Amino acid sequence: MLKYQEIAIEIEKYIEENALQQGDKLPVLETLMTQFAVSKSTITKSLDLLEKKGMVFQVRGSGIFVRRHKRKGYISLLSNQGFKKDLEDYHITSNIIELDVRTPTEEASHNLNIEPNADVYYVKRIRYINGQTLCVEESYYNKAIISYLNKEIVSESIFDYIREGLGLKVGFTDSYLHIDKLNDEEANYLGLNKGDPKLYVEGIFHLTNGQPFDFSKVTYNYQQSQFFIQSNGYLL
Amino acid sequence: MLKYQEIAIEIEKYIEENALQQGDKLPVLETLMTQFAVSKSTITKSLDLLEKKGMVFQVRGSGIFVRRHKRKGYISLLSNQGFKKDLEDYHITSNIIELDVRTPTEEASHNLNIEPNADVYYVKRIRYINGQTLCVEESYYNKAIISYLNKEIVSESIFDYIREGLGLKVGFTDSYLHIDKLNDEEANYLGLNKGDPKLYVEGIFHLTNGQPFDFSKVTYNYQQSQFFIQSNGYLL
Repeated sequence: MLKYQEIAIEIEKYIEENALQQGDKLPVLETLMTQFAVSKSTITKSLDLLEKKGMVFQVRGSGIFVRRHKRKGYISLLSNQGFKKDLEDYHITSNIIELDVRTPTEEASHNLNIEPNADVYYVKRIRYINGQTLCVEESYYNKAIISYLNKEIVSESIFDYIREGLGLKVGFTDSYLHIDKLNDEEANYLGLNKGDPKLYVEGIFHLTNGQPFDFSKVTYNYQQSQFFIQSNGYLL
Repeated sequence: MLKYQEIAIEIEKYIEENALQQGDKLPVLETLMTQFAVSKSTITKSLDLLEKKGMVFQVRGSGIFVRRHKRKGYISLLSNQGFKKDLEDYHITSNIIELDVRTPTEEASHNLNIEPNADVYYVKRIRYINGQTLCVEESYYNKAIISYLNKEIVSESIFDYIREGLGLKVGFTDSYLHIDKLNDEEANYLGLNKGDPKLYVEGIFHLTNGQPFDFSKVTYNYQQSQFFIQSNGYLL
């Protein structure tokens, strides 16, 4: 981890431990520089990272302020670190329905930008939150990048494994959301009724080098899932 | 508009006009500096802005690449510019149900961080896309900031008016999403059936100085609305 990332974590801890509220002012740049004994450019990078993460906002000529409208138990639609992190106070488990190596569907090969006869790991699992169904997920992992998966890995956070086990850097994500009605099969997996509402999310996950490595299709149990999005202003 | 913002628009146009695809490489920094006759720091700011907007991604030591998985007709959940911009090829109209000055609900006063006896503009409107219902929206605008609204303004893009008419700078937004079933009143407004799926979004919109100015509650017609989210990697 780089210095500016470490400092960002320290500042985040400071906000948590002091239970700072939305709009509370952080110490000025010079104080933070002295406190962490780093250059202005390092502390600026730390603050930019925290701003990206929606932890602070910066007002030119006025200072750095805490941003925390986050409500407990909401899943961030901006995090691409897997949602286990948002729900760490909850008990998340998985039930694996299918796990095998196969060739991708046309849709998956298109979204992963691989040949129709390339190998993918196909994972279908139901995820539970405190014993209730949270979602049913189908994912296609490009096997040329995600070279190995097994039942044990897939029953935990696959993203933790990708980062820590495989040492890969997860970059940006494109997500497409639809609201619709559950079909028979989905209702059955989620323990709901056919025709009940669903949130259906297609996600394309990329490494920091821009290569897509995971195409996933997730259907959420509407009774168990709440989402939040923090967006920053675009200046155009 | 600042120089780096102008250049960002130029680069965006270049990408559009040349129909560049996901992963296509942009000219190197030095070429862009020469082409636009600006300093390295200006061009870097332009590229950072485009990265925030999900138009490009930068790979250290490798270059700047086009990012465009955007699908047509999807509403960006990250844009805080009002969704008219995402749907500019579509015909968006509004039907105003209520518009008046009142005191906020407890929920609105909490989210706008104002006194319970402060004045707010209350707006309730149905929005249509190509003549079909898109959503029903209830908004509370802090009147101390949004000093004036009328029927004509409210039947168009309120955000365009806030930026251009009032000269205010729209900053960050916090959004909370829920999936649920339509009640009688909502179904009636949207021309759907009671019990049909809905996406319900609560949004708190802030100025760049961190002041919340709009608390809105929007219920979307599931048949007309598709959403996309582009997120950047967090490095922690």
